Amino acid sequence: MHKVTAGVSNRHLHVSQEDLENLFGEGYELTPVKDLGQPGQYAAEETVTLKGPKGTIDRVRVLGPIRSKTQVELSRTDSFVLGINPPVRDSGDIEGSEGLTLIGPKGEVELEKGVILAKRHIHLHTSDAEKMDLQDKDLVKVDIEGERGVLFKEVLVRVKDSYAAEFHIDTDEANAAGVKNGDQVTIIKD
Amino acid sequence: MHKVTAGVSNRHLHVSQEDLENLFGEGYELTPVKDLGQPGQYAAEETVTLKGPKGTIDRVRVLGPIRSKTQVELSRTDSFVLGINPPVRDSGDIEGSEGLTLIGPKGEVELEKGVILAKRHIHLHTSDAEKMDLQDKDLVKVDIEGERGVLFKEVLVRVKDSYAAEFHIDTDEANAAGVKNGDQVTIIKD
Repeated sequence: MHKVTAGVSNRHLHVSQEDLENLFGEGYELTPVKDLGQPGQYAAEETVTLKGPKGTIDRVRVLGPIRSKTQVELSRTDSFVLGINPPVRDSGDIEGSEGLTLIGPKGEVELEKGVILAKRHIHLHTSDAEKMDLQDKDLVKVDIEGERGVLFKEVLVRVKDSYAAEFHIDTDEANAAGVKNGDQVTIIKD
Repeated sequence: MHKVTAGVSNRHLHVSQEDLENLFGEGYELTPVKDLGQPGQYAAEETVTLKGPKGTIDRVRVLGPIRSKTQVELSRTDSFVLGINPPVRDSGDIEGSEGLTLIGPKGEVELEKGVILAKRHIHLHTSDAEKMDLQDKDLVKVDIEGERGVLFKEVLVRVKDSYAAEFHIDTDEANAAGVKNGDQVTIIKD
């Protein structure tokens, strides 16, 4: 049994340079304010408003660095507030996903796709994966103890030399299971 | 293996007659609009606003009938919006739980306790429990299949002649596991 650190993802978005400029102005660059668990990833100072057919959510954090495509990651609870129905997807798999409107200080972007509920997953450095005898794209379970204990099934393993070991879940999943950022959780292989 | 129907509880409150009158006026009575899964329980027309130190939530449904003590049942997500920290509790176990302010059309109530996150539980009629070989206060697990599959541990069994078989979870738990009202889920005994 191997332990891994939990990282709880609040709603956030990754942006393309084109969408960043449409939202914040020509030639705009993100302002990093806090490093995240994965090397090179950071929370930016910039936030946007999300607008759906039923409601809006303000001050949604942009994460850097810039990506080739804009991607918004929400909880199901958030999606009900906005009135949209995003699919559960691996990061980057946005074909046929949901859309919404992004509102920044200098403009709006009508996203036709890119809104997802992130599939729960574990990031592992290649050396971690070897120690744990796990491979990229394996599905494992993660056990959470405590008064809201659950066994998360359908947990995708993602392995890269640029990753640090971390179990990523959204706020619905964390709140349902009583998990907090930094908790140590247990990987269970089938 | 026994199946049971899932019932997803959105944020709601049960009120005492005294608090009802403080919120809606002297001699006020609840107006039933929809029967719930448990016999005799109903959603009322009446809603209140919840106010905590960090935020408010409008249009929170009152469930009837009247109870001896007011009890507010939230998700952890709701509690972050309000800025309070309610404990996970069985219904009725409100000593030392959280407080907040209830706002109705005719007045406000400062609740010193009564705000909880409901512990996930299964209601069973006595005859259901006999068939399943379960007893009041047993702890079981509930298995959810699908792309967000989880095994819920720490599920409290509650048995009464006035209950109908139903697995009750809050919106965080339902959203985390992809469960919808009316889904059939599987009880797993230890």
